Amino acid sequence: MLNETMTALGKHRSTIREIFEYGNRRAVEVGRENVFDFSIGNPSVPAPDAVRQAMLAEAAGDPVALHGYTSAPGAADARQALADDLNRRFSTDYTADNLYLTAGAAAALSCAFKAMACPGDEFVVLAPYFPEYKMFIEQGAGGKCVVVPPSVTDFQIDFDALAQRLNQKTKAVVINSPNNPSGVVYTEATIQRLAALLRDKARAFGHPIYLISDEPYREIVYDGLTVPFVPHYYEDTVVCYSYSKSLSLPGERIGYVLVPPRATDSGDLYAAVCGAGRALGYICAPSLFQRIAARCANMTSDISVYQTCRDLLYDGLVEMGYTCVKPEGAFYLFPQTLEPDDRAFCERAKQYDLLLVPGVDFGAPGHMRISYCVQPDTIRRALPLFGKLAEDYRK
Amino acid sequence: MLNETMTALGKHRSTIREIFEYGNRRAVEVGRENVFDFSIGNPSVPAPDAVRQAMLAEAAGDPVALHGYTSAPGAADARQALADDLNRRFSTDYTADNLYLTAGAAAALSCAFKAMACPGDEFVVLAPYFPEYKMFIEQGAGGKCVVVPPSVTDFQIDFDALAQRLNQKTKAVVINSPNNPSGVVYTEATIQRLAALLRDKARAFGHPIYLISDEPYREIVYDGLTVPFVPHYYEDTVVCYSYSKSLSLPGERIGYVLVPPRATDSGDLYAAVCGAGRALGYICAPSLFQRIAARCANMTSDISVYQTCRDLLYDGLVEMGYTCVKPEGAFYLFPQTLEPDDRAFCERAKQYDLLLVPGVDFGAPGHMRISYCVQPDTIRRALPLFGKLAEDYRK
Repeated sequence: MLNETMTALGKHRSTIREIFEYGNRRAVEVGRENVFDFSIGNPSVPAPDAVRQAMLAEAAGDPVALHGYTSAPGAADARQALADDLNRRFSTDYTADNLYLTAGAAAALSCAFKAMACPGDEFVVLAPYFPEYKMFIEQGAGGKCVVVPPSVTDFQIDFDALAQRLNQKTKAVVINSPNNPSGVVYTEATIQRLAALLRDKARAFGHPIYLISDEPYREIVYDGLTVPFVPHYYEDTVVCYSYSKSLSLPGERIGYVLVPPRATDSGDLYAAVCGAGRALGYICAPSLFQRIAARCANMTSDISVYQTCRDLLYDGLVEMGYTCVKPEGAFYLFPQTLEPDDRAFCERAKQYDLLLVPGVDFGAPGHMRISYCVQPDTIRRALPLFGKLAEDYRK
Repeated sequence: MLNETMTALGKHRSTIREIFEYGNRRAVEVGRENVFDFSIGNPSVPAPDAVRQAMLAEAAGDPVALHGYTSAPGAADARQALADDLNRRFSTDYTADNLYLTAGAAAALSCAFKAMACPGDEFVVLAPYFPEYKMFIEQGAGGKCVVVPPSVTDFQIDFDALAQRLNQKTKAVVINSPNNPSGVVYTEATIQRLAALLRDKARAFGHPIYLISDEPYREIVYDGLTVPFVPHYYEDTVVCYSYSKSLSLPGERIGYVLVPPRATDSGDLYAAVCGAGRALGYICAPSLFQRIAARCANMTSDISVYQTCRDLLYDGLVEMGYTCVKPEGAFYLFPQTLEPDDRAFCERAKQYDLLLVPGVDFGAPGHMRISYCVQPDTIRRALPLFGKLAEDYRK
């Protein structure tokens, strides 16, 4: 009687959410400090104090203007401020009219997919990938999600596997670098090779193939790394961004779709993103946080603790014999599990109150995602338990 | 190449938005004070000062908790606070688990439609109706929107016309009282008759017919009127609510879907609403305003100015010979236009810088919507222009 797909989606929460909720129940039983919840990507560092200052400054203004509807793509001055910030950092020449503000990256992706999807269209995602992509593509936009298996030695791109999956029906390829769940950042060489492949195929098929770059972790990188700015390498790039991670504002839902002016049919694509926002019930991005993002776009939370956590966790696990591609960004580690069945491994880890997410959910079985957006002390106390778990497997 | 429907939706803004943007351009030419923009429903009274106080109080708290993800349906304590407020006012026994917090009423409706819609399903809307319903139903949820013509003498329900449009495929009927655009509040007798009809038809068809009650204007009524609380009259009611109007927070996007425990398949329906939220890319309602709504749910903005405006405008127009059903709520007046072609009439009104929305967009041609959420002085200055316009038609 109801929509069965929606009912199922609602009943079977994402595995990540399921583990997160298990952790909350378990915390009641054994104490919060004894549950090592590495399941969810909720930033552990506070928003910059400038966010609080901006809230106070805005609260002193006219509430009718502050809390009123903005135009559907977002307030023009807020969009211009965000465009200026991009222009300053990436030497681009974007204007307010290239940005459509959204309720976070999930909304940005949903609008981009819905804007593009015609019946039969395929969207290619590269494992390991954020599991909700499939749902936004298939349930939200009515497209088909095609998965490229992971390149497990380095989590860059398996180009042969990707090339095999591009065809006449391919509307777009989705990338996410720095990556959730692997933490890997695509190298400039990877981006260049990807751009060349997509240009070739677009020419062969006689229509553009868009590259949807989902980059909420763009600012969270280590060792002074620079993330290549994807639109510089491939014209038909659409960027989906969120301030959830860089400004530690995941609950506030503020991000954007960037449709660069050089993209094919840029004007129509921007219009289609606006239309998709209407169709999906997005009226405007939350107005207060449009203004706060505009005021704070040029800064990030103090992300140094994430590097401390990565170093502690990566070094500790590798020393114990875990195999792991060293992540250079985001706040996830994606080591191999100690048995091929990653679900079984993660269940076994629960005996030590280590809450990990099986890789199979990201299209990469035999791995586990560890969200290390926690306090370093949590990692120090968890490491001996990872050690005991490894010992169990040696018995 | 792109989705043509989305491109068209994005290019052809809703008529309301189009007129609103025209008003902004015209204000630059002739001065803001000389443009009488009655197009958009942006509350003109500020949020209660308690909203500002709540912002300041929350800003002093832990930013990680404040701005973090909440669980997908909303923070349990915020949901419970909103349930408690409903229980106090309507003698109900709702819990946190009956509420799914959303980014406003548009998101609430989108989730409700998507939760219910199976292929071929019909959703019945009653003219005059909010034009975005059709888009949420057809483009967002994949259902079919069926329109019942208006009962123009009183804007209650034409029950014969409604009964003719109910059939085996009817999944739900959508009502909106106090109504946008007519301002009319359904009487208790109307709600009772509607409930009886839906019960009859549900029995005849052998499946429930849900009643989706879209009620963002529930608190905005005049002359001490009480709005019947629809779930008291019909078990299979789902309420979509927003704090946009009652707390003057339209840009902040905070509202809810209420799935009462007595509704058929209540548990599954709630799950399906959660699933629809996932599919449409809604992660959680904005976290700060979840807390602010919880703190301020028992109050409203000072809405007395709306009654002042209604009285001024209604009395003034009727005296000039305009025909209009007297509105008892919301902040819209929906008089008949002085020629059958309401688009032509609204174009002609522009000559006097009166910006009105044609009724045809709401499924009620021959009418005009006047949003009177403006300052009373604006109405005093606009009335002579409505007079001149009427004179033009007498020539």
